[in-house]
Amino acid sequence: MLIGKIVGSVVSTRKNEKLVGSKFMIVETCAGTGDTKRVVAVDNVGAGIGEMVLVATGSAARIGCDQENAPIDAAIVGIIDSGSGLPELDRA
Amino acid sequence: MLIGKIVGSVVSTRKNEKLVGSKFMIVETCAGTGDTKRVVAVDNVGAGIGEMVLVATGSAARIGCDQENAPIDAAIVGIIDSGSGLPELDRA
Amino acid sequence: MLIGKIVGSVVSTRKNEKLVGSKFMIVETCAGTGDTKRVVAVDNVGAGIGEMVLVATGSAARIGCDQENAPIDAAIVGIIDSGSGLPELDRA
Amino acid sequence: MLIGKIVGSVVSTRKNEKLVGSKFMIVETCAGTGDTKRVVAVDNVGAGIGEMVLVATGSAARIGCDQENAPIDAAIVGIIDSGSGLPELDRA
Amino acid sequence: MLIGKIVGSVVSTRKNEKLVGSKFMIVETCAGTGDTKRVVAVDNVGAGIGEMVLVATGSAARIGCDQENAPIDAAIVGIIDSGSGLPELDRA
Repeated sequence: MLIGKIVGSVVSTRKNEKLVGSKFMIVETCAGTGDTKRVVAVDNVGAGIGEMVLVATGSAARIGCDQENAPIDAAIVGIIDSGSGLPELDRA
Repeated sequence: MLIGKIVGSVVSTRKNEKLVGSKFMIVETCAGTGDTKRVVAVDNVGAGIGEMVLVATGSAARIGCDQENAPIDAAIVGIIDSGSGLPELDRA
Repeated sequence: MLIGKIVGSVVSTRKNEKLVGSKFMIVETCAGTGDTKRVVAVDNVGAGIGEMVLVATGSAARIGCDQENAPIDAAIVGIIDSGSGLPELDRA
Repeated sequence: MLIGKIVGSVVSTRKNEKLVGSKFMIVETCAGTGDTKRVVAVDNVGAGIGEMVLVATGSAARIGCDQENAPIDAAIVGIIDSGSGLPELDRA
Repeated sequence: MLIGKIVGSVVSTRKNEKLVGSKFMIVETCAGTGDTKRVVAVDNVGAGIGEMVLVATGSAARIGCDQENAPIDAAIVGIIDSGSGLPELDRA
């Protein structure tokens, strides 16, 4: 899974019908993961901007979040409380 | 999911029969995502050149767009109205 | 999907039995995609060296080409006639 | 599979219910693999900080670890005793 | 699929039970593929150190090698005899 911070969100009105009701967040992955990038992930846990989160990618995002038939390839599946092994976590 | 702008399209006459009727668009991912690249995605929402879109990749593209048996690994599944957290969205 | 040009092929005699009969081509992805690399893809459309092609990756390659049980993760699924949005296509 | 060393862990209280009981470790992939990065993987073998491990990614992480319906895309599936072909293994 | 040369192997005693009996090889991908890296792949064809091989990744590795329920995301599925289109193959 990826670790990152929620830095924004996206609004889309014209979209695949299976995405209606989904909340699209922009997550910036931690620099400590060796590759800072921003991905769009569907929120599955009620996370908000500024929070550090766990993101599941690939088929795990659909199947693990009970949206097996939706065109979702990334989902926020946990809010991080604390941790070690990444500079961003050590500061948390 | 990826965010990008549609910058072109591709025509293919000799192709896998399950792709007949598919519209192939070239999407340039946002520089703000840390990695600008151009990918080919099948249009699922009636998007056109110049629009900012959401692209689902992997098995989500096939299954989420009701083309479970087609050789599709990327699909445009939403047109972006507005957003925050990416330079390209802030300007939109 | 990836876009690239077929630049070579590979012969393998000792291989997984589900690959018997498969034709392995080397495809160089377009520089315009931001990342030139060479991948091995199984030909599904009768493509030849020098042609510009569409490559499906991941589970789409197996399932979309009716080889659901074969160890294939990339397949050539279309020959490109024309297009726009990539330098290589504009020249085509 | 990836090879790396466990360098930390992550605690998440608010998470997808299928992740309850999962232990999230941070694994730093070997420099010898050409790309040092830190990923979050669910522990499947009782591994601890400092150990060199094998990490399975994608659907293999869910299905191979009997958590087919959980939003898991990376799992620690082996602890490495010895090996060759990577600087980190030669030193082990 | 990836092309690479087998450069080492890994021994793991404490591992997921579905991996018992699997032989883990380290494969260095060809520089000609644009990205030299070393990956761990399970041998499916009796390949040895120094051989050039084809590696299937993702779900194709599990399903194509009749280990659908094992946590395997990369498998060696062919030994390369000859080829063209990659510097390493031209020299073979």
